[in-house]
Amino acid sequence: MGRTLITGGLVLTAADELEAEVLVEDGTVAALALRGGDTARSWARSGAEVVDAAGHYVIPGGVDAHTHMEMPFGGTFASDTFETGTRAAAWGGTTTIIDFAIQTPGSPVRAGVDAWLAKAEGNCAIDYGFHAILSDIDESSLKEMDALVDEGITSFKMFMAYPGVFYSDDGRILRAMQRGATNGALSMVHAENGIAIDVLVEQALAAGRTDPRHHGEVRRALLESEATHRAIQLARVAGAPLYVVHVSAGEAVEELSRARDLGVNVFGETCPQYLFLSAEDLAAPDFEGAKYVCSTPLRPREHQEHLWRALRTDDLSVVSTDHCPFCFNGQKERGRGDFSKIPNGMPGVENRMDLLHQAVLDGRISRRRWIELACAAPARMFGLYPRKGTIAPGADADIVVYDPGAEHVISARTHHMNVDYSAYEGRRVRGRARTVLSRGRVVVDRGEYLGSAGHGRYLTRGTCQYLI
Amino acid sequence: MGRTLITGGLVLTAADELEAEVLVEDGTVAALALRGGDTARSWARSGAEVVDAAGHYVIPGGVDAHTHMEMPFGGTFASDTFETGTRAAAWGGTTTIIDFAIQTPGSPVRAGVDAWLAKAEGNCAIDYGFHAILSDIDESSLKEMDALVDEGITSFKMFMAYPGVFYSDDGRILRAMQRGATNGALSMVHAENGIAIDVLVEQALAAGRTDPRHHGEVRRALLESEATHRAIQLARVAGAPLYVVHVSAGEAVEELSRARDLGVNVFGETCPQYLFLSAEDLAAPDFEGAKYVCSTPLRPREHQEHLWRALRTDDLSVVSTDHCPFCFNGQKERGRGDFSKIPNGMPGVENRMDLLHQAVLDGRISRRRWIELACAAPARMFGLYPRKGTIAPGADADIVVYDPGAEHVISARTHHMNVDYSAYEGRRVRGRARTVLSRGRVVVDRGEYLGSAGHGRYLTRGTCQYLI
Amino acid sequence: MGRTLITGGLVLTAADELEAEVLVEDGTVAALALRGGDTARSWARSGAEVVDAAGHYVIPGGVDAHTHMEMPFGGTFASDTFETGTRAAAWGGTTTIIDFAIQTPGSPVRAGVDAWLAKAEGNCAIDYGFHAILSDIDESSLKEMDALVDEGITSFKMFMAYPGVFYSDDGRILRAMQRGATNGALSMVHAENGIAIDVLVEQALAAGRTDPRHHGEVRRALLESEATHRAIQLARVAGAPLYVVHVSAGEAVEELSRARDLGVNVFGETCPQYLFLSAEDLAAPDFEGAKYVCSTPLRPREHQEHLWRALRTDDLSVVSTDHCPFCFNGQKERGRGDFSKIPNGMPGVENRMDLLHQAVLDGRISRRRWIELACAAPARMFGLYPRKGTIAPGADADIVVYDPGAEHVISARTHHMNVDYSAYEGRRVRGRARTVLSRGRVVVDRGEYLGSAGHGRYLTRGTCQYLI
Amino acid sequence: MGRTLITGGLVLTAADELEAEVLVEDGTVAALALRGGDTARSWARSGAEVVDAAGHYVIPGGVDAHTHMEMPFGGTFASDTFETGTRAAAWGGTTTIIDFAIQTPGSPVRAGVDAWLAKAEGNCAIDYGFHAILSDIDESSLKEMDALVDEGITSFKMFMAYPGVFYSDDGRILRAMQRGATNGALSMVHAENGIAIDVLVEQALAAGRTDPRHHGEVRRALLESEATHRAIQLARVAGAPLYVVHVSAGEAVEELSRARDLGVNVFGETCPQYLFLSAEDLAAPDFEGAKYVCSTPLRPREHQEHLWRALRTDDLSVVSTDHCPFCFNGQKERGRGDFSKIPNGMPGVENRMDLLHQAVLDGRISRRRWIELACAAPARMFGLYPRKGTIAPGADADIVVYDPGAEHVISARTHHMNVDYSAYEGRRVRGRARTVLSRGRVVVDRGEYLGSAGHGRYLTRGTCQYLI
Repeated sequence: MGRTLITGGLVLTAADELEAEVLVEDGTVAALALRGGDTARSWARSGAEVVDAAGHYVIPGGVDAHTHMEMPFGGTFASDTFETGTRAAAWGGTTTIIDFAIQTPGSPVRAGVDAWLAKAEGNCAIDYGFHAILSDIDESSLKEMDALVDEGITSFKMFMAYPGVFYSDDGRILRAMQRGATNGALSMVHAENGIAIDVLVEQALAAGRTDPRHHGEVRRALLESEATHRAIQLARVAGAPLYVVHVSAGEAVEELSRARDLGVNVFGETCPQYLFLSAEDLAAPDFEGAKYVCSTPLRPREHQEHLWRALRTDDLSVVSTDHCPFCFNGQKERGRGDFSKIPNGMPGVENRMDLLHQAVLDGRISRRRWIELACAAPARMFGLYPRKGTIAPGADADIVVYDPGAEHVISARTHHMNVDYSAYEGRRVRGRARTVLSRGRVVVDRGEYLGSAGHGRYLTRGTCQYLI
Repeated sequence: MGRTLITGGLVLTAADELEAEVLVEDGTVAALALRGGDTARSWARSGAEVVDAAGHYVIPGGVDAHTHMEMPFGGTFASDTFETGTRAAAWGGTTTIIDFAIQTPGSPVRAGVDAWLAKAEGNCAIDYGFHAILSDIDESSLKEMDALVDEGITSFKMFMAYPGVFYSDDGRILRAMQRGATNGALSMVHAENGIAIDVLVEQALAAGRTDPRHHGEVRRALLESEATHRAIQLARVAGAPLYVVHVSAGEAVEELSRARDLGVNVFGETCPQYLFLSAEDLAAPDFEGAKYVCSTPLRPREHQEHLWRALRTDDLSVVSTDHCPFCFNGQKERGRGDFSKIPNGMPGVENRMDLLHQAVLDGRISRRRWIELACAAPARMFGLYPRKGTIAPGADADIVVYDPGAEHVISARTHHMNVDYSAYEGRRVRGRARTVLSRGRVVVDRGEYLGSAGHGRYLTRGTCQYLI
Repeated sequence: MGRTLITGGLVLTAADELEAEVLVEDGTVAALALRGGDTARSWARSGAEVVDAAGHYVIPGGVDAHTHMEMPFGGTFASDTFETGTRAAAWGGTTTIIDFAIQTPGSPVRAGVDAWLAKAEGNCAIDYGFHAILSDIDESSLKEMDALVDEGITSFKMFMAYPGVFYSDDGRILRAMQRGATNGALSMVHAENGIAIDVLVEQALAAGRTDPRHHGEVRRALLESEATHRAIQLARVAGAPLYVVHVSAGEAVEELSRARDLGVNVFGETCPQYLFLSAEDLAAPDFEGAKYVCSTPLRPREHQEHLWRALRTDDLSVVSTDHCPFCFNGQKERGRGDFSKIPNGMPGVENRMDLLHQAVLDGRISRRRWIELACAAPARMFGLYPRKGTIAPGADADIVVYDPGAEHVISARTHHMNVDYSAYEGRRVRGRARTVLSRGRVVVDRGEYLGSAGHGRYLTRGTCQYLI
Repeated sequence: MGRTLITGGLVLTAADELEAEVLVEDGTVAALALRGGDTARSWARSGAEVVDAAGHYVIPGGVDAHTHMEMPFGGTFASDTFETGTRAAAWGGTTTIIDFAIQTPGSPVRAGVDAWLAKAEGNCAIDYGFHAILSDIDESSLKEMDALVDEGITSFKMFMAYPGVFYSDDGRILRAMQRGATNGALSMVHAENGIAIDVLVEQALAAGRTDPRHHGEVRRALLESEATHRAIQLARVAGAPLYVVHVSAGEAVEELSRARDLGVNVFGETCPQYLFLSAEDLAAPDFEGAKYVCSTPLRPREHQEHLWRALRTDDLSVVSTDHCPFCFNGQKERGRGDFSKIPNGMPGVENRMDLLHQAVLDGRISRRRWIELACAAPARMFGLYPRKGTIAPGADADIVVYDPGAEHVISARTHHMNVDYSAYEGRRVRGRARTVLSRGRVVVDRGEYLGSAGHGRYLTRGTCQYLI
C-alpha cells in the first residue's frame, strides 16, 4: 500500500495534542515527527502520498464497542447489515466496531460466533470484532469461554433483563464471572431488574398505559441502579472485572462511583442517546416516541448532568452507541397499542464522533477526553490498544482527518445508516470527519465514499487492559 | 383477677425511668403514681396484692418478634413446641412472641395460619401473634393478604434465599410489597441472594469443604448486603415499608443506614447470636460448629461492632431471637459431612433479655434503649403498642420485676428450652427476671414456674406504627 | 397548691398516646390513671380541681432551648424582656425556656451568668434555665466551666462566626470541648465560617450589594456545612459531645447525618423559620426582607425538604426558636443600605408549638415526634428530663391542654411578643394551647392570661442525657 | 547539540508502551519511529549518536513537583543546595523539579521569587521551576499573583498549619483562591488544622510527651482531613481549583474522593514516605525517629492501603517528594527533648522513581501509572506538559534509559543527596536509571555523573491542564 504522509494537522490522542506529521507505511503508523524538523522534511521529499491536514485534527479512528448489526429482535432484524452499518460508521469517523455474536439457547456459544463471523465476512468497510452473548450458562458454555478468550473473543455479555429471552439468573452470572476471574474474560452486563420490570410492564398494559412513554416509566431508574449494584457485588464475590453497558440513570452512576472509589474493577459505558435525548423524546406524540424506545430507556433530562459529570470523573469510561436501528415504518410500528412490542434500539453509529465533538465545543469534556471516550478507552477496555485507539508507531493506520469547524445538520435525509429516521433529526453540530483512513487506506474523503465491503478485517482481541 | 400493686421499683420504659408505683387491675395497668404520694399511699392501704420490687427494675415484658416453634425444616421440626417454647420465654422475661405461620406452596395462606393457630391454641404460657410466610405469591394470595391484615395478621415474610423452598423472585416480592403499600401490611424479608449462594454451596461441597464453618463462608456478607439493597429498592419502587430480619453483616447495616438517611421506611432486626457469637463458634471442632448454624450465618467478629453501633444509631431497631432450636443429637447431626443438611437455627428465646441487659452493663446500650429494642420497638413495629411493650395506663400488665444484680451462668443444664445445648453455654451474665406477670398473672416468681399452658392468648395486631 | 385533675384528654408524650387522666398534686404530676377505671373514678370524687380536656390533647409544656431575651446586639437589645418574652411563650404553650448568659470578653463567665440571672429574676412567667456563651476561652474560663456544670449550667455555646465579637478560634473551641469531655458539659456551636463570610460580606458591600437578601447570599450554605464538619471533627478529637444550633443548610444536615451514622455524639437543632420561611422572604421588597435577617440565614426553599427529612430521621433532634426579636421600626432599620448592620434575629417563641402542630397535620411529622422535638428532646438534651418534657409521675406539672382543631391566623396584631411584626404574618394554622399549666398553676386559659411575672423559677440542669 | 538516537528500548509513557526508536535533535524529541521500519533504519544510518536501550525502558525524566532546596526552617537550612539537590535528582532519574519561592511576610511575593531565582541560577543540573508561597495575602500580593501567573509562576501555596509562621486564615485563603479563579492560578494547600494542632502540641509538651513519635500523635489524622475538607469547600465557594500537597491520612483521601466524585477540580499529592514508611519509624528509639519528622506526619501503617488505592483510583494524582532534608547530626538534633523543635522534612528526591518502580513490581500500580504519577501528571498539573513529562515529538529530550532489573540497596553511604542519613536505609529495590538525558544532554550514564551545575534552566510554566 505504500507510504502516506499526513501533514499539517494537530495530532490528538487521549494523551497528547501535538503539531506533528504522521507517516503511514503499509497500513501501519510508522513514525511521528515534529513538524518542520529534519525528519519531517525528509519525509516530505520522499514521494509519499500526502494527506493535507492543515487546519484539521488528526485523530485515531473511532472505536464503537457496542453495535448490533442485523440483530434479530422480536421477529425482525436491525435494519443495518454489516455492510450498510460499517459503511455508515466509516462516514462518521468510526473505523472499528465490536458487535455481539448471540448464543442461541441450547446451542453452543461458538455456533453463534460462527454465525456472526459469517454474516460479517466480506461485508465490512472497517475492522470489526465480536463480543459473545451468553444465553445459556452451564458447564459446557463455561468451557467454551476459555477457548474463545484464547481465540480473541474476550468479553461476554449477560442480561439481567428480558426474562425468558436473554435473561440469566444471578447464579449463572456469578458462574460466568468466576470463569472470567480465571480466564481473563470481561463480563458485560445489561443491568436492569427484568423480573421486577416485567411485573410493571404487565400492570401498565393491563391499565391501558400502552404508549411508548410508558416504556420509560416502567423501567424505573431504581431498577437499573439495583441491578447495577447487584452485578457489582456478584463481580466482587467472583473477584472478576465488570463492564456495565448503556448506563442511563444517575442512580446507577452512583453505584459505579461508589464501587470505583473502593478500587473495584468496575467500568461503565453510556451512549449518546442518554446524553443528548430524554424521556421527553419518548413522550413525542403520534407514536413518534417509538423512535426512541431502547433499553435501558431514555431518562428524564436531569439524569444527563449525572452522566456528563461521570464522563469527566471517569466513573463512566466509554461512550458507545448500542447502534441497533429499526425503521419507524414497518418495524417500530409493530408496537402501536403495546409499547412492549416496539423493537428496542436506535441508530447512532454514524453520529457518535460528531455529537461528542460538539460536547467538546459545549465545554462538557476536553478534546483529549473526547478521544479517550470514543477511541482509546474502548480499545483498551476490549484488548485492542494500541493497535486501535491511538496514533503511535506500530498502530494500525486508522486515522481520521477531522474538520472541527464544519457545521452540519444531522438528518435521515443525509445520513448513511439504513434506517428511515434519525434520532437526532435537525440537530446542528460542528465538526465532521473529512478524510478517513482504515489501515492506511482512504475510505472516505471529502464527502466521497472510497471504501469497499470486505476491506474490514476481523479483529482478535486481547483481554481488558485496565486491570492490575 | 383483682388488683396488684407493684411497689418500690424503678419503672423502666423506652421513654422513662421513674420511681413509681404501678397499679394493675384485671390484667391491665390501671395507673402509675409517684412513690410516696397520696395516691400511692392510698393504694398501699387498698388491699391490693403487693409485689415488692424494691431494688429491682419494673420493666415491660419482652416482645420477641421472631420465633419458630415446632417449625418443620428439612424433614424435622424445631424442638420447642409452643408449650415448651413459650414457657422458656416466660422464664426469660419475655411475655409476647410473634411466630410465623407458613403457607404451603399450592395451599392458601390462610390454611397455614389456621394450622399454626391450631398448634398454638391452648398451649402457650404467654400471649402470641403470627406473621405469615408467603411461599406462593399470586393473585389469590395477594387477595388473602387484605383479609389477613384486617384480621390482625399484618406482616408477611418473604425469602430471597432458599430457592426451591421458600424463595420468592423479585417480581413476586414486588407484588406483595405493592399490596402492602395499599393494605398496610409490613413486608419482612430474609435478605440473602440465595440463587448465588446455592452456586457457592454446590462448589464448596464439590470441593470437599463440608464442615459447618463453610456454611458461614459460602453465605458471603456481600450476598446479604446485596439482597438487603435489592429489597430496599423494591420497597422504594412499591412505595411500601420493609423490615429486614436477622441482619448480621456490617455491609447490610450500611445499606439500611443509607436508606434510612433518605427517610425511607426501612427497618432492621438483629439477634443476640450475631451480637455475641461469631464465625469462630461456627468453626468449633468436632462438628460442634453445627450448633451455630443458622441463616444469615454468624459472621467474623468484626461485624459485631457494626451491629452494636447500628443498635445505638437506630439503623437497627429491634432485637429478636429467630429462636428455632434443633437438638445437636439427632437433628444437627444430620449434616455431618454436608453442612447444607444441618437444620438452620438456634435456641435463644429464654436468653435475649438477659444478654441485652448485660450489654447495658457493658456500656453498649442505655437502659432505656434495652427496653426499646426488646419490648417497645417490636411492639410498635408489629402493631401491638401500647398494649404490649410499655408500662402505661391501659397496657396489658405484662410486667417483669427484673433483678439487675443477679449473676448467673447460662447453660443447657439449667435452661428451660427443649434443646440439648445452649448457644451461650458457660457465659456469665448479670441480670435476671425475678417475677414475671402476664396480663396481671404471676407466671414466674423467684425460680418457680406458676403459669399454665393455655393462659397465653392469641393477639390480633394492628399495622406498623413507625410510618407517617 | 392543691390537686388538679386533668380529665378527658388524649395524653400525648414523645412515647405514648394514652386515654388517661392526669392527677396533679402540689405542682407535680402525681399519677396517671386509665380513664374510666376505679382509680380515675376515685379521683373524680376527691374534690380536685378539674380541668376538662375532653376533645383536646394533654401535652407536656413546650421546652424552647434557644432564646435570647433582652439580648444586646450591635448597640440595641432584643425587644422582648424576660417578662414579655416568657409571657408570650406561655401563650404559645411553652413552659420552659433556656436562654443564653453572655460572657463579656475579659470578664468571668460567671459575671455574665450573674447578670443574666438578675435580668430574669422575678420577671418570668415560666421556668427558665441558662446556657453560657463563652467569649473568652482560657485557663480561667475553663476552670469556671467545671463549677458552672456543678451548679446546673451544663451547656456552653461558642461561635465560629462573628470574628471580633463572639468568635472563638478552633484551638479555643477544642480546649472547651476537651473540658466538656471531662466535666460533662455539652458544647453548643454556631457553625458558620465567619472568617470567610466576612470576606464575602466586605466584597458584597463594596460592590453595592447591600440589600437584606445579600445577607443570605454571602452566608453560603457551604460555609455552614464546612463549619459543621469542622466542629464535628474537633469534637471527635476532643472525645466530647456536640450540639449544633440553628442548622439551616441541607449540606450541614448531611454532615450531621454522616457523623451520626458513625455513632458520634453529635446533635442538631433547627428552628421554625428554616422550616417555614426561605430566601424568598429575605428578598422581600422595600427592605421588608430585613425582618427575616438572622444567622444562619434563611435558605432557598429546597433546603426545607432536607430539614424535614432530618427531623424524621433524627439527624436533627430539636426544634428551638432562636427567638431574638428586633422591631422593624427603629431596630431592623439600622441596616438600610448595609445589610451587615441589620440586627440578626427573629421573633418566634410564641409560634413554635402551633407551627409544628401544623406540620403534624401536613403529614411532615407524627404527633409523638411533635412532642419529642418540641418538649422531650430539648429537655433530655439539656438535662431537664423527666422534670420537664413529659407527663409522668414526678414530673413538673407543666401541661398544656391543646386544642388540635382551633384555627387561627398568626399576626403581630394578636401576638403577645413585644415586637412590631410577625415573621409568619397572615399564616393560617390549626391548633392552639387552650389551657397552660406551669408547675400546676394555670397561667393561660381560654384566651386569658392568668400568670404572673416571677412565677417562673430558675432551673439548674443536669448534663445531656443522650450520651452512653 | 546534534542528533541522538535512542534505540532498542521499550518506550513507556503515561499513555503507551511502544517498541519504538526515539530521535533527539537539538535537545528536543524530533520523532518516534517503529522499530525495524524504514524510518528507523534510515536513522540508524544517519550518523546520530546512539544510546543503546536494548532491554531497558525509555521513559520521560521524572518531574518532582515538590522540593525545598536550601529552605530556611527554624534557624537552619535544608541541607541540599540547588546544586547538590538537583544533581541527586538527576542520579535518581528526575530531570525537572518545581521548588518553592517563599514570600517573607511584609515583603512582596516577587522579592521571594527573585531571591529563589538567584539561589538556583547557575547551580542546577536539571531544569527547574517555582511555585510561590504566600505568607501575606492582601490586595498587593493578590495583584502580584496576576503578574506572576503571566510570567510563568502559576501555582501558589498556602498553609493552614504553622500559625505565626506561614499560616493563612480562611479569609486570606479564600481571597487567593478567588484570584486563582480569574487568573488561572492553582492554589496549593498544606492542609492541617494548625490552630488546633498547636493546642495539642502544647499539651503534649506540658505533659512530658516530647519524643519524636508525639509529633505524629498530636498531628491527628482527623485534623488533616478536617483541613482538607475545609480547603475543598473554600475552593468550591471561590470556584477555583485546588491541589492538596502531601496527603497522608486515609480520612483526607476520603474527602478528596468525595469531592472528585462531585466533579470538583480538586487534586491530591502524596509522597513516597507516606507510602513506604509509617508511625513505627517515627517511634524509632534513641531519637532516631527524628529522621522521620515531617508534616503532615507519617501515619500508622493502615493508612498506606488507602493511599495506594487512591493512587489507583486517581483520587491522588501525583507523587512528589517534599524533599526537604536536614542532617540528623546538628539539625534534627535540635529537637531532642522537644519534638516541636525538630526541623520538619526528609530527603527523597533521588529515591522517588525507584521506589515507585518497585511498587510496579509489587503489583501496586501499573507501569503506565508509574510514569503518569511521577512524570506526566505533575507536568500537566503545573503547566509543563508536553514539554516535560512525556516522550513525543516536540518534547524536551528529558529521557531516562531505565534498567528495570537492576537491584540495589538504598543507603546514605551511596546516595548523592547532601544529608547524613537515608529515610530508606537498607531497603532493597529493583530498577535504576542507567542513562539520564536532560534536554538531549547525557547527565548521568552508567554510574557516572556527566552533568554540570548551570545546565539546568528555569522553566516558565503554563496553568494547570486538568481543568475544563
